[in-house]
Amino acid sequence: MAITVVGSVAYDTIETPAGRRDRCLGGAATYFSLAASFFSHVRVIAVVGQDFGPEQEAVFKARGIDTRGIEHTAGKSFFWRGSYLENLNEAKTHETELNVFAAFQPKIPEAYRDSEFLFLANIDPVLQKRVREQMPDVKLVAGDTMNYWIKDHRAALLEVLKGLDVLLINDTEARMLAGNNNLLLAARAVMAMGPRFLVIKHGEYGATYFSSFDPQGKSAEHCFRAPALPLEAVVDPTGAGDSFAGGFFGYLASQGKLTAATFRRAMFYGSVMGSFAVEKFGTERLQQLSREEIDVRFDLFRELTHLD
Amino acid sequence: MAITVVGSVAYDTIETPAGRRDRCLGGAATYFSLAASFFSHVRVIAVVGQDFGPEQEAVFKARGIDTRGIEHTAGKSFFWRGSYLENLNEAKTHETELNVFAAFQPKIPEAYRDSEFLFLANIDPVLQKRVREQMPDVKLVAGDTMNYWIKDHRAALLEVLKGLDVLLINDTEARMLAGNNNLLLAARAVMAMGPRFLVIKHGEYGATYFSSFDPQGKSAEHCFRAPALPLEAVVDPTGAGDSFAGGFFGYLASQGKLTAATFRRAMFYGSVMGSFAVEKFGTERLQQLSREEIDVRFDLFRELTHLD
Repeated sequence: MAITVVGSVAYDTIETPAGRRDRCLGGAATYFSLAASFFSHVRVIAVVGQDFGPEQEAVFKARGIDTRGIEHTAGKSFFWRGSYLENLNEAKTHETELNVFAAFQPKIPEAYRDSEFLFLANIDPVLQKRVREQMPDVKLVAGDTMNYWIKDHRAALLEVLKGLDVLLINDTEARMLAGNNNLLLAARAVMAMGPRFLVIKHGEYGATYFSSFDPQGKSAEHCFRAPALPLEAVVDPTGAGDSFAGGFFGYLASQGKLTAATFRRAMFYGSVMGSFAVEKFGTERLQQLSREEIDVRFDLFRELTHLD
Repeated sequence: MAITVVGSVAYDTIETPAGRRDRCLGGAATYFSLAASFFSHVRVIAVVGQDFGPEQEAVFKARGIDTRGIEHTAGKSFFWRGSYLENLNEAKTHETELNVFAAFQPKIPEAYRDSEFLFLANIDPVLQKRVREQMPDVKLVAGDTMNYWIKDHRAALLEVLKGLDVLLINDTEARMLAGNNNLLLAARAVMAMGPRFLVIKHGEYGATYFSSFDPQGKSAEHCFRAPALPLEAVVDPTGAGDSFAGGFFGYLASQGKLTAATFRRAMFYGSVMGSFAVEKFGTERLQQLSREEIDVRFDLFRELTHLD
């Protein structure tokens, strides 16, 4: 089934201990789309400037991604410059230029209307909500956010959370959003804000999935932990979370029935796609990836965690 | 099969967000013994002072632990005072009194000589080495250490590592010991120092087991990740690592053959015992535990990580 994703398509300048790349194609919607495209048909809603040309378009096309919802306007695309020189787990932002994103009014192409899955990548919650409202009949809607929106745009974010089935955030964001340092209590508090399902990402330690809790708080029965792969070299962590989301949601959308087992496998595919994303700069690794490599790594993740 | 463990039997004064306990029974060898006693016969080598009486002895006896190797001398037992008020993942030490431990010369009772498993809990590597040398014929020897020995007693510690089959340490210790921040590269470096098997503990994120690497560095095949249980309340983290070691090594010692599958299950039992230890202050929870509860939680860990 088709996924519509709204989010940023951008240029990133990235510095990591492995080197530096200037203005490579990035953005949450880009990573998400590439990762999800290995499982489902993906349709993007975004805005780009005149610096986005056929070369960038081709990256999406090569993966069969529908780009009719990428609006081209005068000006420059969203730009981000960051580094991970001291800590591979956390980006240090040096520069953010919203550019054409500043006046972004997401429009949903008619051809996207029958999408049954909707992903609201990390953008202004006001925009997330607007897209959500225009697609009231989707089967499953998932979203991401970040510390900036949690801290300074809480009211708008809480509105978005009410309309989400699945929220994907990291440890720090979950604790900040809930105002609780205990991960389980934080998860419970966040789920009380709307999402029935919650994925908390732990960087190099994997991710935990929570589904609705029972009132007694015997919640462990409703948890699932997917590992991350111990990697010899993390070249560039940019987009790891978005790639996780793409693998996770892309797999869900590829399945007829959404059972507990489906969500478990989706967590594994999320981790798999995140593990590939960080192996090269920007989207390089996702662009070169094959479905066969994904399956091999999925088996590796099983091997890494299963008793027999 | 029997395990001999050498380490501290001590009194701890502990402050956590959940409260405070004064002079409760603690020490690495105590936590290890209690946890391991659910799986194997355990024999302790330690030294205590006149403040260690029948009440403390009874804690060991109730679990069938052999205490003939606990030497009673004039003076006071090892004492530690610490808190976890800001960070449940890391103890802040306020006071350490070596007391009778300062002049400790481990002696191995004749009755312990046929132990096939040896655990060197976190003590001065000079003492660890002395015990190791007195038991050259054990089938498997595992050990623990801490940042203090890694930083200031590196030469002595390296001598111990040469004689270990299994080393259990945490993330920070592994990175410090190896001088490498990448967990996989750190693991490889530590294993080059001696241990064929390495367990790196990640606190609330679980633990990773590494066995010997191949020269190509295709090491993921030799990794296993066990989760930690997302807990509603961590009352007291003291002894979690020692309890992990007790569950891990106790289970190994209970098995006839040490296969890859045995090590995987041992990792789960380690996590299980660690998860119980932190539920109450000091050794309270381990003292009250039943084997049935252990089995139920083992199944919970499987549920938490397995796809089907």
